This record gives sequence, C-alpha cells and structure tokens, in this order.
Amino acid sequence: MATGFHARHLSIVGLGLMGGSIALALREYADKITGVDLSQATREYAMDEGIVDVATDELYAGVNHADVVILAAPVRVILEMLRMRIGTYLRSNTLLIDIGSTKSDIVDAMGNLPIGVNAIGGHPMTGKENSGIEESDANLYQNRPFVLCPSRRTTPAARLRALGLIQRLQAVPIEMDATRHDQIVAGISHLPYLLSATLVATIANQAKTDTAYWELAAGGFRDTSRLAASDVTMMGDILSTNTKAVATLLAQFRMQLAMLETMLIAGDDTNLSETLKPIRTARKEWASNYENKR
Amino acid sequence: MATGFHARHLSIVGLGLMGGSIALALREYADKITGVDLSQATREYAMDEGIVDVATDELYAGVNHADVVILAAPVRVILEMLRMRIGTYLRSNTLLIDIGSTKSDIVDAMGNLPIGVNAIGGHPMTGKENSGIEESDANLYQNRPFVLCPSRRTTPAARLRALGLIQRLQAVPIEMDATRHDQIVAGISHLPYLLSATLVATIANQAKTDTAYWELAAGGFRDTSRLAASDVTMMGDILSTNTKAVATLLAQFRMQLAMLETMLIAGDDTNLSETLKPIRTARKEWASNYENKR
Repeated sequence: MATGFHARHLSIVGLGLMGGSIALALREYADKITGVDLSQATREYAMDEGIVDVATDELYAGVNHADVVILAAPVRVILEMLRMRIGTYLRSNTLLIDIGSTKSDIVDAMGNLPIGVNAIGGHPMTGKENSGIEESDANLYQNRPFVLCPSRRTTPAARLRALGLIQRLQAVPIEMDATRHDQIVAGISHLPYLLSATLVATIANQAKTDTAYWELAAGGFRDTSRLAASDVTMMGDILSTNTKAVATLLAQFRMQLAMLETMLIAGDDTNLSETLKPIRTARKEWASNYENKR
Repeated sequence: MATGFHARHLSIVGLGLMGGSIALALREYADKITGVDLSQATREYAMDEGIVDVATDELYAGVNHADVVILAAPVRVILEMLRMRIGTYLRSNTLLIDIGSTKSDIVDAMGNLPIGVNAIGGHPMTGKENSGIEESDANLYQNRPFVLCPSRRTTPAARLRALGLIQRLQAVPIEMDATRHDQIVAGISHLPYLLSATLVATIANQAKTDTAYWELAAGGFRDTSRLAASDVTMMGDILSTNTKAVATLLAQFRMQLAMLETMLIAGDDTNLSETLKPIRTARKEWASNYENKR
C-alpha cells in the first residue's frame, strides 16, 4: 500500500477550484506550497488566504525547486506545458501529476519527458457548479474517485507516491490505462454534455417563435440541461482531445435512441414499457450503489 | 380577472402527490372535499390526515354531488373516465378540470362530454422526485406555471372559475391551445426524458463489460440521467398520447446533434466553440430569467 505522503516542496500549476482545493487538502503534508497562476488577482487571493506560501506567474521559478508538481490547468494547457518546456524545468526524481479531464494525449506526452521525471496521469471525478479559487474546499476530493493512468515515465515508486497523495486527499484511487479512462468519461461525462447542449440548442431554436418554451420549462429540463452551462473553453479542450471515443459513444447513443423511437412511433407501448423498465432500474441502482454512498 | 374561487363540494379523483396537494391548498376554499382513489391505504391516509372530508373508491358517489371535479390521474386513466362514464355522472354546470401531462387527446375527449358539463384542460408544471399522497404539500403549486387549455365544453364562466382556482393555488395561469401545449412539453419534458433514458441505456450497455462506468459516473451523469428514473407507466402514458410532437422534436434534436458532431469530428474547434457559446448563454439566461425567480 501507499506510504504516508509528504512533499518537501509542492508546486501546483493552476490555482482554480481544483488546484486551490488540493493546496488546502495537502496543507499539512507539504513543508512549502508554491502556486503558479497567470492571474494576479488569483495569486493575491491565494496568498491572502494562506492557500499557498509562494505565488508566481513564472513556470520555471514555480516548479524548479519542487519535488512534487501538480498540473491543474485545462487539458490543452497541460499538453502545451508537457510538450514545450516543463520537462527541462524539473529536477530529477520530481513526481509530476496532472489532473486533466482526458488522459490519452497527456499520458502520451508524458512518455516523451526526459528520463528522471516521474510522471503519472490523474483525473479526480469531482467538481462544483462554480469554479475559481474562491470556491476551494479542502474536502472536495473526499470519497470521490481519483483515476490514475500510468505513462512511460511512471516508475513503481512514483505510482506509490501518487497513491499516497490521493490517500491524503481522502479520495478513492482507481488505476486504469488512459484509453479505457477516455472511453469511460466519453460515456459518463462528454456524451451527457453534448446531449445537454443539443437539448438547449433544440429548445432555443423552438423558442425563437414561442417563448413559452422557456416559461414552462421546469425541473426535468433544468436537470437535463445543466451541463450545457459548462465552461465552453474547458469543454472544447476535453472534446477535442477525446474525439474518437466520443464519436463511438454517440453512435451507440443514436442506435439506442432509434430503438426507442421506433417503438414509440409504432405505438408499441408494451415493448416500450418493457424497455424503459430496466433502464429505470439501472439508474436507481446506480444511485443507491454509488452516488448515495459518497 | 378571476373572482375569488369557492367550491361547495370539491371532488378530487386520484389522491397522489398532485391531487393531495390540491386538496391541502384548497382546504379553506371548499366547504367539503371528497377524494376518490382505488387504494384503501391512500384513502385511509387522506382521512387520517384530514386531507379530505370523505374518501371513496366509487367514482359515481365521489363526483355526483360535486360542483368542482378535478381529475388528477394518469393521462390514460383520465381519457378512459372522459370517454366511458364520467360525463353522465356529473350535475349540470359542474366545473371539470384535469391535470394530465398531455392535453390534445384529453381536450378532444372533453369536447364530447354532455352539454352542461363545463370542462377545461389543465397542466400544472410542478412535481417532486417522490410521488404519493404522503408527499403532499400545500405549496406545491406556488409560483409554478399552470397551463389551461380550452375544450369545446369550456364556457367563459368555466374559464374564469378555473382561473380563480389557479389563483387559490398561488400558481401562475398560462392559457394556450392543447396542440401548442403538447409541442412545448414534448420539447421541455418528453424529449429530455427520452434523452435521459437513452443515455442510461447506452451506459448500461457499456457497463456490461466494464463496471467502472458506474463507478466513475459523477455529477454530470447524475443530473442528465435523473429523469430516466421516472415512473415508467406515467411516462408511457405521456409518450403514447404525444407521439407526433415528440417525433418532431426528436428529428430537430438529431439535426442539431449531427451539426455538433460534424464539427467535432472535423476538428473544427473554432466553430464548435462559437456554436457552444450561445447555447451556454441561453441556458444561463433561462436559469436567471425563469428558474431562479420561482
């Protein structure tokens, strides 16, 4: 099992909700925490609130002395850092973890880092409706799944240290390869986002000639459409680095939808009902077996 | 405007969440409330809690002396009552309102009731995650839209009396014809249900060979899939009485989805992002203009 995690110098690149929450959760397990962020307001907030010990907008200065570096930026920013500069900035034996939402491209890029950088991909399955460091919460990761995906630069020691870090966050580590991770999140996260956005686009189109669509929309629409309000840049990053898996899941979704539609149009109520029943059961079982236990 | 509503004898057919909540909300505006329900347990609960004054499982006895009758049953049960028996059970000048979730078939059936029965279709846009009379809440209708759809048996006096009843529920009356209502709810309610059910079916299919789909599913999946847990009988009733409008909306949804998918697969990030931005704005504006004001 993982040994007690401790960092001499923890560096967190990107002080948003996720990065800020990691800083709060690991406060007592790091001698020093440096935060790297381009926003001056964010850096000032992080310093004023004691979330980090040092804040800088310089990547080199922020990560060069660290023994643990966490990349908590949008996927394409993480990719750019991995491909362009960060490998040469790090000391030998530094543990590098990212928390980007898709993993295949990132883990591939990690594989090309200099030997001696111990890099592993991560994806904590948590979040909040609002983002930004002001929303930081030391308990954000508690009891939530934290996926770890090995790269060609993941040593056994690095893996154990990452597991120890996840333990300190009180998260639940789940190890899998990046391809499998990306297929799963395509289904449980990216497909739902696309459906939600497409639903809103469909209603917005109807509402052009009849605003009562907005007026009458209630709880069912609210829940189903919530993801459509997600940050567009972040979702664009995610979708563009997981296109293949998303397209595969979309094809399966369309097939399932066509089956239901055929029964509906044929007036085949018995079959429709017999098809919807196990779906209802599956959703209820998920809620009682997973969601309600967190 | 509507005058102060008062019933000499209010009869509510169907003592579920919706019917029970109407009884509670209209308690002081009716000299007597009779509830009709086939379930003995429900009738006993309604009597024990003082929700109704009389409870019966006999439709004739329950509605024959009423001057206001509210049909609060599933759509196909309402249709059966309208087509088979209830018209001959009612006294002349009785106000008959239903609260079924689709309106065209019901309003059509109302048009064939005996002259003298004053019938109008209704659909309150409210509800709760759990159903049953135990969930009844006098404030369930407060500030929520309550659609009224005229039938060939809606007299001007009946319309005013229905508006008065809605005022007592503290709901917001919205008058429109049944066809328009059914198109709108196809978009904001029935389409979201089908998408939610199809999403769960897609994930359940994947999870057959990899249960990590369930394990990693988090908030985005939870919201988007919630409607899939709806009562299958109720949704079957709704879909089977609104097939045409649902099929139309499904076709529009598919077209919008194909547009997004094309951009995604082409790697056209700029266009994808420019398409998603106004969708995000529309969802956020709906929340601030409508949802958050209720």
